[in-house]
Amino acid sequence: MKIILDVFGGDYAPSEIVKGAIFALKELNNDVIIVLSGSEEEIRKELSQYEYDKTRIEIINAKDVITNDDIPTLAIKQKKESSIVVALDYLKNNSDAIGLVSAGSTGAVLTGSILKIGRIKGISRPGLAPILPTINNENVMLIDCGANMDSKPIYLAHFALMGSAYMRSVYNIKNPRVALLSVGVEDKKGNELTHEAFKLLKQLPINFVGNMEARDMLSGNYDVVVSDGFMGNVALKSLEGMAENLFKLIKQSITATFARKIGAAILKPALKEIANKMDYKNSGGAVFLGIDKIIVKSHGSSKYKSVAASIKQVLSMHQSDLISNIKDDLSKIDLNIDSAQNN
Amino acid sequence: MKIILDVFGGDYAPSEIVKGAIFALKELNNDVIIVLSGSEEEIRKELSQYEYDKTRIEIINAKDVITNDDIPTLAIKQKKESSIVVALDYLKNNSDAIGLVSAGSTGAVLTGSILKIGRIKGISRPGLAPILPTINNENVMLIDCGANMDSKPIYLAHFALMGSAYMRSVYNIKNPRVALLSVGVEDKKGNELTHEAFKLLKQLPINFVGNMEARDMLSGNYDVVVSDGFMGNVALKSLEGMAENLFKLIKQSITATFARKIGAAILKPALKEIANKMDYKNSGGAVFLGIDKIIVKSHGSSKYKSVAASIKQVLSMHQSDLISNIKDDLSKIDLNIDSAQNN
Repeated sequence: MKIILDVFGGDYAPSEIVKGAIFALKELNNDVIIVLSGSEEEIRKELSQYEYDKTRIEIINAKDVITNDDIPTLAIKQKKESSIVVALDYLKNNSDAIGLVSAGSTGAVLTGSILKIGRIKGISRPGLAPILPTINNENVMLIDCGANMDSKPIYLAHFALMGSAYMRSVYNIKNPRVALLSVGVEDKKGNELTHEAFKLLKQLPINFVGNMEARDMLSGNYDVVVSDGFMGNVALKSLEGMAENLFKLIKQSITATFARKIGAAILKPALKEIANKMDYKNSGGAVFLGIDKIIVKSHGSSKYKSVAASIKQVLSMHQSDLISNIKDDLSKIDLNIDSAQNN
Repeated sequence: MKIILDVFGGDYAPSEIVKGAIFALKELNNDVIIVLSGSEEEIRKELSQYEYDKTRIEIINAKDVITNDDIPTLAIKQKKESSIVVALDYLKNNSDAIGLVSAGSTGAVLTGSILKIGRIKGISRPGLAPILPTINNENVMLIDCGANMDSKPIYLAHFALMGSAYMRSVYNIKNPRVALLSVGVEDKKGNELTHEAFKLLKQLPINFVGNMEARDMLSGNYDVVVSDGFMGNVALKSLEGMAENLFKLIKQSITATFARKIGAAILKPALKEIANKMDYKNSGGAVFLGIDKIIVKSHGSSKYKSVAASIKQVLSMHQSDLISNIKDDLSKIDLNIDSAQNN
């Protein structure tokens, strides 16, 4: 089976992306082939640094690149030879291709996935869903973190269903606790969207535990947090921003005097441990759930370890039959959702 | 002049609230009198522990208390002898009363302020606005952080105007940088609400610097961040949650071994410095901007220092003529806002 990797997306492309592929190969079974999409010449130059099993790397040449400055919908249509479009076409046309990883323009990956691959039948909108590490060493999926602005309640119901299927399938959690991002835990808290979504989530055959507050995102009390893309994005970036700020301040402060530098030397491993533990890039990328193939959007700042983690994530999703499971779940709730959608 | 303090609100009422009043008295000029609202008996018991100028403390007896379990609109109407209602009535009826501080139920303080005191004429909705410390030792106001769900664009325009007036009046910032909370800095990023609000903010006579991302809330690049209450609440609680989590993890990790405990002992002051620096309760409470008197909502977990900071904040707002300044600004833009509101 083949996993496709867009080599020309992300801040550290192409070198860290290719390095990630080589790193992943070592940890994956021999039956996995990684297909690299991008300028063949540059990819070969990067590959020449490494020793690896040449039968397990394929290259599909793509002369062009879509950057963050491109307008995604236009770029997907016009830059037909860009690394991401070539990768998506390959994914679409090859039944042995199980999924795709890109650290490139989020807009291009999302738009391209919808245009080239399409949604799972019955899913109103796909949601972008990072997996965040919780403070008690578990994981929580936040869905959606930015693919959909101005969501309708039915989108959130589908996010809940897919998130629950993901944590059940990929993480083997029997009955994932699904919560709705709100401004308090009480049922009545929230806005028009969450009030309507709350009613739908209660109807789903999932373990819906009610509203939650953003402060408890990483508490370990939830397996899936459901949100509109705007609000999820605000939550995710606030968490990231605070973590970055605190580590910056700590770094400044603990090296401010000679005595503190000694303390800092002793505690460096402890602080590094925490930074690593809370860095969600280590556990893979954000899944674009609701597309009819496996799409993982690796963080733009991904280095080789994150790229390799995203590649392994594709394999886990494939092996756990995630997309089939979502389709099964969806077939069971069709009627309820449809009747509720008209409320 | 008099500042009213609701003694029976907050996790540490009444003891820390009364202590906060005594602490504030020492730092304020002799012409400031603090009016304590609540059970006279209990207040006298608390006061008996302290030495203070008795001419500068007044008590207004209030037999009842509104808690977080009460429904705010009902409680304000029914619990007429609660400490917050008595305090608001006093504020309304006494011209020498310049403002009010409460650490009690946010819903009750907001609802009570609107019902008892009322909005500034021309303000569509008041906004709840905490002042957050930035990493470069400045401050940023986030308005609104939860008073209004499902805001209309015009609300955000008024938040922007009031926030700008606050930072100009109270913090002497000549031309406060006002930004709109969104999912990216580009003009087109955001949802329907932010797109419409963006157009209005551009028309205001303020220094509108465009969209901003939640990750940059505390960067020091902005003086005022404008947001719907749901999104502002999500941002604020995410920031709080991440800070709490990281400090918790650091505490665990740096005391895990004997060697680390030594490092921890050396670095304790540095870490405490940072925790203090980033604790926004130290610089006062959240202002309820848009009410025709000064209302400061101190954090529910406020101890005496936060209470005292909130009292001093009321005085700063009074001395800088904030409410007059807002009214002046409002009179200048009336026409523009009104025409835009109909878009």
